[in-house]
Parts: sequence; structure tokens; C-alpha cells
Amino acid sequence: MQAVKGTRDFLPEEMILREKIIENLKSTFELFGFQPIETPAIEEWNVLAKKGGGGEDILSEAFSFEDKGKRKVGLRYDLTVPLARVIASNPTLPLPFKRYQIGKVWRYGDVAKGRLREFLQCDIDIVGSESMLADAEVLACATKALESINLKNFFIRINNRKILSGIISYVGINENVSLNVIRTIDKLDKIGLNGVEKKLKELKIQEILVKKILDFIKIAGEPKDVLKKVEEIIGNFKNCISEMEELFNYLKMFNIYDKVKFDISLARGLDYYTGPIFEILAEKKIGSIAGGGRYDKLIGLFTGKDIPATGISLGLERILELINIEAPKTKVKAYIVATSEKLIENVIKIANELRKNNIATDFNIRKRSLEKQLEYADSLQIPYVIIVGERELRNNIVKVKDMKERREIEVRINELVKFFYPARTL
Amino acid sequence: MQAVKGTRDFLPEEMILREKIIENLKSTFELFGFQPIETPAIEEWNVLAKKGGGGEDILSEAFSFEDKGKRKVGLRYDLTVPLARVIASNPTLPLPFKRYQIGKVWRYGDVAKGRLREFLQCDIDIVGSESMLADAEVLACATKALESINLKNFFIRINNRKILSGIISYVGINENVSLNVIRTIDKLDKIGLNGVEKKLKELKIQEILVKKILDFIKIAGEPKDVLKKVEEIIGNFKNCISEMEELFNYLKMFNIYDKVKFDISLARGLDYYTGPIFEILAEKKIGSIAGGGRYDKLIGLFTGKDIPATGISLGLERILELINIEAPKTKVKAYIVATSEKLIENVIKIANELRKNNIATDFNIRKRSLEKQLEYADSLQIPYVIIVGERELRNNIVKVKDMKERREIEVRINELVKFFYPARTL
Repeated sequence: MQAVKGTRDFLPEEMILREKIIENLKSTFELFGFQPIETPAIEEWNVLAKKGGGGEDILSEAFSFEDKGKRKVGLRYDLTVPLARVIASNPTLPLPFKRYQIGKVWRYGDVAKGRLREFLQCDIDIVGSESMLADAEVLACATKALESINLKNFFIRINNRKILSGIISYVGINENVSLNVIRTIDKLDKIGLNGVEKKLKELKIQEILVKKILDFIKIAGEPKDVLKKVEEIIGNFKNCISEMEELFNYLKMFNIYDKVKFDISLARGLDYYTGPIFEILAEKKIGSIAGGGRYDKLIGLFTGKDIPATGISLGLERILELINIEAPKTKVKAYIVATSEKLIENVIKIANELRKNNIATDFNIRKRSLEKQLEYADSLQIPYVIIVGERELRNNIVKVKDMKERREIEVRINELVKFFYPARTL
Repeated sequence: MQAVKGTRDFLPEEMILREKIIENLKSTFELFGFQPIETPAIEEWNVLAKKGGGGEDILSEAFSFEDKGKRKVGLRYDLTVPLARVIASNPTLPLPFKRYQIGKVWRYGDVAKGRLREFLQCDIDIVGSESMLADAEVLACATKALESINLKNFFIRINNRKILSGIISYVGINENVSLNVIRTIDKLDKIGLNGVEKKLKELKIQEILVKKILDFIKIAGEPKDVLKKVEEIIGNFKNCISEMEELFNYLKMFNIYDKVKFDISLARGLDYYTGPIFEILAEKKIGSIAGGGRYDKLIGLFTGKDIPATGISLGLERILELINIEAPKTKVKAYIVATSEKLIENVIKIANELRKNNIATDFNIRKRSLEKQLEYADSLQIPYVIIVGERELRNNIVKVKDMKERREIEVRINELVKFFYPARTL
């Protein structure tokens, strides 16, 4: 019997790597002043489905059900909506509130594309600052976090929801379909210009307007030039232009400006974004490894009072497909075997002593031959095997076998701890 | 809007403590040779409800629902049944397989008792050894893990399911009600002898048999004496007696025998146990902080081939109610404020430098007075505030304010990293 489709198990070898990556991400988040929080997997459906929250697309993928008290609940599809609820229900939190959260989210999407339905998100958010400094800080932290796990060839796509709204009102599209248009533009990367054209026509947008949209989203180049062209077309747009100029300026101060591409077609699927939006990409075929943006209205949906916020979410599964870090198969340093079952008390005594001295130790608990025991230690890639034999014990000695070098030496029992210290480099 | 009833949020102060505790538990688990795994929150209902698995009581509390593919699934109620599925679906794993898993589980229980419906379990299990050494090892590791977080006044209740089965067949109770009788005995701690008597009568057990059961579960004392009395009454019971003698013997070798109480009334709620069962208790009012036992038949339910296994589960929420460890409110070491907004580039430059040198740093991103900025740093208990002023900058100097001592000194900017190194003791 396997795990449910779209979910999976992680065995030790993979988990040791995952935990190493997560440790690195957390350290970077903390260096940048983000503090950990945790929220439940289950949320009231009212929270998840709040109008102006995630939006229809994501809700159609969300797990929902009635609990035993007949309450409609759901599994969270992101960590941002729950954060908004947390802020709303803790009005005395000092602002800005910088938090990180690493946790599973659930989306019943298409598994065929290699996506999971239960996957881990690593989010950083800054709540309570309308300054572009907050957006820049979030991007600087995400960049350093990815660099901390040896990811190098990635870049950041940036756009602003206000530019997308601007083009929509410039083109003159009905508000009812504007979210659909934004969602269609968002697919440019996947379906190309022709695909976008086709989908826009399906939305019954007039051909002349479709052309205007396509011309617009083709704009590319240096941020400064893009902003200028956008302003020329849309005009009357000072707020957004100066916001983006400010953001790019701060990104320079954080030394990550060279990683940024201003991409007018970036839209991001979630409805709650209101300002700058971003996405981090590595190799094309993997898709985005992180996404986020500013959502100044989301918290207001829960409190009635808007609190500005911005953040980014890193997808661990995607990141793991990209990196090439080796992790050990086990963290055990020493495996103790005995030449006779009668020696178990000596074995345990040695294990107690090593463990007391922070040396991860295991020992044989099965009835099996010495050879099979060594095979077992080898299959787990445990670096050292301690062999306890009656003859050696009489001289307070054990044999220590270096499993990699296939060398065996004798070590005095009271010097075993000392022997292992130099090996504890992990 | 609050979290769903029975679930809760954890804000930074609490999370920093939780993570510190979890780190300690993990280190101990790894010292004892347990490796991490992870399994999904969602499991097929067939897996969770397997006959001979968790049993009716726990299933009545399990969250279940249909996913969008009309498959009946549920949220895991423990980490043991999923482990059995993992072992079944990975037949080539080298045995013994020692794993730990730290993860949320869901049970729709009575919230009034201060229990949560979404809570964290920390499990260690050894799969593939029928030896009592495995049970002793699990208990030794749990003991050291609790000691690693400064818990001292706890003890381990031990019993054996075979003793409970023995008494049931000795008394001569129908197999149909035997599980109910075991579940009733398990409540002795909560409802007392009178309560057990009442419940047994409700199960329509004859009065004379009820008396026999009550006499039996009253047996107490030194393990050796208890075993002798049990043998006298039940007789023909060699297997179980020698198993328990062996276990107590190993517990001595692990130096934890003095923590153990042999308690013939301990039953544990889950159906899958087959041998020794254990529970760790601290203060009476908190209930058990850990529970587990041997389940030699559970994996066989999934593979058709029995694989012996034993383990214990530590409940983090209960443990946190007991311990008294202080955690910082934030991990930020330095908070940078500027006397003028124009100095933001200097602020970011200093932040970049400190962060590059592993000093967790934050800085002001809000428009507010210097006084308000200091109040903010204080409310988060950040130990140092760096004040960047125009006059000082001209001399390549900043002021550093020690927020605890309320002292202020001047530090050269290129010596800031050096200044903070001695402070990085966390």
C-alpha cells in the first residue's frame, strides 16, 4: 500500500538532505530578522474562501470537508491567508511583524506535471510597512537563502499588479473579466503569445483590444526603459512608477539588482496581490521556485482595517530538484557488534559512554552472524564499526574498523571517546 | 477570526521555545541511531482503518473525508500506522530500521480537557527486532531525550499486553468483549477501582469475574514480585514472564531501571499492541507525556508477513506544559535605526555587512520617530540598537545602545562585526 496519490514518503537519506536545506533557509531567515510562527493545517473554510483572498483558481484546488461538528473546514492552500488571520486575531503584535513559516500546504492539482498535492512552503513576510524597503528586504533575504544552499543560476522576475490593472483599464476591459485577463497573461511563460491570444479571444475580448494587450506585454528591457514605455502608454500613473523606481533603487543597495528582470507579463495566480509581485526562476523546465508579492488589502478582509504586507514563498520540492548537495545516509558514527551475545552488557556500556559524549552510536540487536552485522553497517554507510570480543575485553580493548578504508585498529576502551572526536566533523 | 477550535497558532516567542525543545529531542534521537523520516498528513482511509490497527476508539476520533477524486481519505491520528505502511511499501529497507518522526497528528477529541485536536508527536521506533533490547533501547532514548530538556521528575509505567490477555483468558471472558475489558482497565488511573467496577458491570461481565479482574489489577510492587504473583495466578505463562524479566534486565544495563514502575493495570488505548506497553508520566494532573509499546502484528496487516516492531511517542504539547526553559522573544541581535530617512543606504550597508558575518540584524522600515523605533526594539527584547547619525557617519562611527544595561557607546563601523561577536552566545 502506497501513500495517497500526490503525496509521498521521505526516507532517511532524503530527509537528512531536506533537513539540511531547511536548516540553511531558517538560518538565513533569522539573519534577516524573521521569527518563526506556526499555524494549523486546518482552517475554517470562511477564512480560506474569503472574497479577495486566494481567489477562485486556488479554491477549486483546495481540500475542504465537514468536521465532526459539521463545521466546514479546509486544509490551508498557502501560508499567507493564515498569516493574515493571525495578524487580525493578534492586534497587539508590534509592527512591523517579520515572520517566517515553514509548513505543508495542500492543493488538489494535476499530479501528472510532477507537482505534489501535499508540499512544503517556506515563507517570509513583513507585515505593517508600506515601504518598498520591505519588498526589497524580502527579495534580498530570499536571494541569500537560495545562495546559502549553493543555488546560483536563478533570477527574479518582477512586475506590479498596478501595471496590470493599468493596462486593463487603458485597454478598456470590463472589470468582471479583468481577473481572468490577468490570469491569462500569467500563462504567457507556459503557453506563449499565441496561446495568450487564443485564450483572450475565448474570453470574448475584442480583437483590437487583444492586440493592444499583446503589444503591451511584449515590452521588455532594462527596468528604466520598461517603466518609461509603460508610462508613455498608460500615462497618469505616477504612483506605480515611483514605487517601482524606489524598489529597484533599494534592490541595488541590497546588491541583488543584477538578478532582477522587470517582466510586464508576470501576473501570479493568487488574487490578493495589490502591488509589486515577484517570482524566482532557475532553469526553465522547473518552473518558478518561489513566488510572492505585496498584498495590502488581505489583512483588512479579516480586520476591516488594512495593514500593508509583502512576502515571498519558496517551494522546497522544486528547490530540491535543482540542488546538488550530498547528504549522508545516516548520522550514526559508530556501530557496535559483539562476537558473542553474552557480551551485550559490555556493548551497552560502550554505547552509553559514546552517546553520553555526543557520538551517535548504534549496536546490533538482532541474532545474526558477524558478517551480516558488518553488511548491515555497510548498507547504512556507517563509518566505523566497533567489534567487541572476549579476548580483547580481557585487555580492555576493542577493535575499530574503518569501513571506508577497510582498516582495523585496536583502541583502548577508555580512549574510544577520544578516538571518535576527530571523526565528528558532520 | 480565530483558529479552528482545538487548533492553535504559535507566535514567535512560543515557537522559539518549541524549536529549541524539538532540536534537543532530535539530537538525542540521532545519538541513539534513529534517522528521520516523513510521511503525509493524508492517508487512505483503508490504511488508517485497517482491522487490528488503531482500533474503534481512535477511529471514532479520526478526521475523514472524500477528496476531489472521491477517494475516502483521512488525516493521520498517529505516526505508527503510517510507519507500518512505509515498511510494507519499502521491502528492501535494511532491518532493523530505526526511525524518528516529528509531525502533527489529528484527533477530534474533547477539547475541554485541554487537549488539542491538532498536536505534535515525536516518535521513535525500531522495526525488525523481536528482542527486548529494542524495547529497552526505545525507553532509554526517550528517557535521555526528556532529560536533555531538563525534565527530571518522571517515571515509566510498564505492562505487557500478554498479561492483560492472560488475565482475560484466565477469568474466562468472551473474546468479543476482551478489547472492551482492556480499554476499561486502561481507565483505572482516571476513574479509579470503583469506576472500573461500574464499567465492567455495564459490559455485562458476571460479578464474580469482575471481582477476579479487580483483584488482579490491584497487584503492585517490585517488578520481580509482581511477575511472581502474576505467574502464580495465571500460570502457564513462561513466555511473557521471561520477556518481562529480560526487559527489566536490559533497563538496568541502560541505567533507567529506577525510573520504571511495573503497572498491571496499564493497557494503552490503541489496539495494535502485542507485547510490552509503556507510558511516561510526570505530574499526575498532566496525564501521560509519552506512550508506546510493541506491535509485532501491525506491519503484517499491510504485508501479510509479520515484522516485529516497538516504539514510543512523546507528546510535545504535554511536555511543554511541564518544562521551565526560557527562550528569547527574538533571535535578532542588532536593530539599526537612523536619525534621518536619507541615511537608508548607510543603514542597509551596515545590515548587509553584519548579516554577511552571521549576526542576525534588523532595521527600521517604518516612518516613525527615533523614540518609537527604540520602543519597538525594546518590545521585541532586541539586545542592541545601532544608531546611525549624520555627524557620527562623517567619522565612520555609529552609536551602539545596550538595551538591557541602557548604556551607549561609540563603535567604529569597520569594527562593528568584532563588537558583536562576543554577543553571539545564543
